[in-house]
Amino acid sequence: MEIAQRSLTVATRGRGTTEITRQVAEAVAEAGLHTGLCHAFCHHTSASLTLTENADPSVRADLEQFMARTVPDGDPHYQHDMEGPDDMPAHIRSVLTGSGLTVPITRGRLGLGTWQGLYLWEHRSAGHRRSITVTCLGSREG
Amino acid sequence: MEIAQRSLTVATRGRGTTEITRQVAEAVAEAGLHTGLCHAFCHHTSASLTLTENADPSVRADLEQFMARTVPDGDPHYQHDMEGPDDMPAHIRSVLTGSGLTVPITRGRLGLGTWQGLYLWEHRSAGHRRSITVTCLGSREG
Amino acid sequence: MEIAQRSLTVATRGRGTTEITRQVAEAVAEAGLHTGLCHAFCHHTSASLTLTENADPSVRADLEQFMARTVPDGDPHYQHDMEGPDDMPAHIRSVLTGSGLTVPITRGRLGLGTWQGLYLWEHRSAGHRRSITVTCLGSREG
Repeated sequence: MEIAQRSLTVATRGRGTTEITRQVAEAVAEAGLHTGLCHAFCHHTSASLTLTENADPSVRADLEQFMARTVPDGDPHYQHDMEGPDDMPAHIRSVLTGSGLTVPITRGRLGLGTWQGLYLWEHRSAGHRRSITVTCLGSREG
Repeated sequence: MEIAQRSLTVATRGRGTTEITRQVAEAVAEAGLHTGLCHAFCHHTSASLTLTENADPSVRADLEQFMARTVPDGDPHYQHDMEGPDDMPAHIRSVLTGSGLTVPITRGRLGLGTWQGLYLWEHRSAGHRRSITVTCLGSREG
Repeated sequence: MEIAQRSLTVATRGRGTTEITRQVAEAVAEAGLHTGLCHAFCHHTSASLTLTENADPSVRADLEQFMARTVPDGDPHYQHDMEGPDDMPAHIRSVLTGSGLTVPITRGRLGLGTWQGLYLWEHRSAGHRRSITVTCLGSREG
């Protein structure tokens, strides 16, 4: 059993998704494992990691719209608004979508389905530099 | 430390949950580990894996009804509707409920609480064949 | 590669979050791993584990209020209400927020971001004793 861990930084341009599938797949390739698990973790509470459809960009646009309606900015119910109307919604969206993703490593590759992509989802209006840790655990033999 | 990985296929009959606890517990028994982690992963973006109450079927019926109201089919806000009114809701439900589950392995068994069951949740109206990968990682000794 | 597993019990006082970051960090310290993964798992279907902002308590109050509005107690749509108006909402909140969390172990420590804390979220109105299993997997060397 072997383990490999590396850091990624993703610069976002404000709300929306940035695909990170390639970077995570590269971490898996570099780890050199045949069978195992790959875990990606976002070190923030106002951005999250999400797995969704990777073909039609309107899926991610609709996810964004769904969140905009379900967790509206500037809702007068929020007490926590120090950093603006998108502050608390960013925390709620992050809780609903999650800070981490685990994907199997199979035959040396990140074992995603054909239409699955991994995304960093920025929930703040402004761009940020977001830190991600990718950990690969498994065996070199099949 | 040892690792074992196997594939499951679940045929669904359209929207709703199919219990997979037994199949995942069998993968754990076959792996022969005393202490570790078991990870199940669904290779699709319109079905998810969910852990919930395993005794009263009305819990899963109420979960279904909650999603039907919260993420309605045919909502005119959706741009992505190529495959019908249940297309985008299936992606949103999958993001909200998640593609993977990790459960401890303790004393050789899947360490679920008494009332916890693992479910594949089909979010499309039509039945599909869904692929799941189960990975068990851990040690043979206690 | 090494593995260590321990149980935690958290006594809740009804709805709301109880921070468990310190207990999980202690389990990591005791495991003595340099690089790895730490997984925490809640053995219940009416309480969940959530990662969110650890500085301003109003964030957790707003999360609670968001859930109270989105998954209202006593909604006449619920069939499952044997244990009262908070019974089914507790199951839905648990599905939306998740039973488990995985966090990297980096240089011997739980690799959380500065503002990230781990919380047990009790979703029932009454207090309960909640069981959590913490599993640490990784290597002693860097």
